[in-house]
Amino acid sequence: MEAIIVYTTFPDWESARKVTRELLERKLIVCANLREHEAMYWWEGKIEEGKEVGVIYKTEVSKWKELRETIKELHPYDVPMIARIDLDKLNREYSEWMARVLFG
Amino acid sequence: MEAIIVYTTFPDWESARKVTRELLERKLIVCANLREHEAMYWWEGKIEEGKEVGVIYKTEVSKWKELRETIKELHPYDVPMIARIDLDKLNREYSEWMARVLFG
Amino acid sequence: MEAIIVYTTFPDWESARKVTRELLERKLIVCANLREHEAMYWWEGKIEEGKEVGVIYKTEVSKWKELRETIKELHPYDVPMIARIDLDKLNREYSEWMARVLFG
Repeated sequence: MEAIIVYTTFPDWESARKVTRELLERKLIVCANLREHEAMYWWEGKIEEGKEVGVIYKTEVSKWKELRETIKELHPYDVPMIARIDLDKLNREYSEWMARVLFG
Repeated sequence: MEAIIVYTTFPDWESARKVTRELLERKLIVCANLREHEAMYWWEGKIEEGKEVGVIYKTEVSKWKELRETIKELHPYDVPMIARIDLDKLNREYSEWMARVLFG
Repeated sequence: MEAIIVYTTFPDWESARKVTRELLERKLIVCANLREHEAMYWWEGKIEEGKEVGVIYKTEVSKWKELRETIKELHPYDVPMIARIDLDKLNREYSEWMARVLFG
C-alpha cells in the first residue's frame, strides 16, 4: 500500500460533490475533504479572483491513472489541476482500512 | 532539521483543539493550522458525509513516532488518518525557530 | 516542468491578498488558493491561538528561490513559514498551461 493524496479544485460545491461522489462509487478514492477557498490566478493575460472548492482525495497509488483520467472526464474546467503528493508515512491502521475499502 | 507536516482530521472543534493543545504542551509540534471541511467517505459499505476539522501539524522528523502514537492514543476516531509529508524545502529562519521551540 | 506548491500563512486577508497579487504580477506563481484557519502555536514560551489566512501557491521549481526571497521581503511576519512540497505527479494539461503563463 502506497498511499497518495490528490488535490484538485472545482468552481462550486455542486460540481465538487457530484464528481467526488462518482469517484467514491467507482472506488477510485476512499475519502475526500472539501473546503472553500479564494483563488487568485492568471487567466488569459489577466489576474482573476473567485471562490472555489478545493478537494483532497485519499487513495492508493495504483488508482492514480484511472483517477486522473476520470477527474479530467468529469471536471467542469477545461484545464483542472490534478496534483499528486505521495505520502511519506501513513499509520498502519488507516492504510489497512484503505486497502479493505479499495480492494475488498 | 528535517521538517515535516502531519495531516489528520477530527470530528469536531472541541476534540481537535484538545488534542492539539496536548501535542503542543508535550512539544511534539510547534504549530497547528485547523480548519473545517466537509468529508465524503466509505464507511461500513456506505458513502457517508459530514463536517470535520482538518489539522496540519508542523514539526521535525525525529518527533514523528511519538507524535503518531500520541495522536492515536488521544484521537476520538478508531481509525484516524495520520499522514506525514516531508517538506522538500523550508526557509532557514522558520527551521531555526522550530528547532529552538522543540529542542530548546 | 517540475511543479511545486509552496505553503505560507498570513495574519489577515489584507496582507495575504496584497502579497499574493504582487507574486502574481511578478510571475513568480500562476495561482494561489487562500482560506482561513485557526492557528495554535508556541510563541515566546506560551501557547497562542488566533485566526490566520493560509495560502497554497502553485509554480515551477525554477521560481523557488526568488519566490522565497520575495515572500520574506513582503511578509508582515518576522518569521513566516515558507514550505515547499514538490508534486510527485501533475496532469500534463495543467503543467503546460503553467509553463505558458510563467515562461510564455
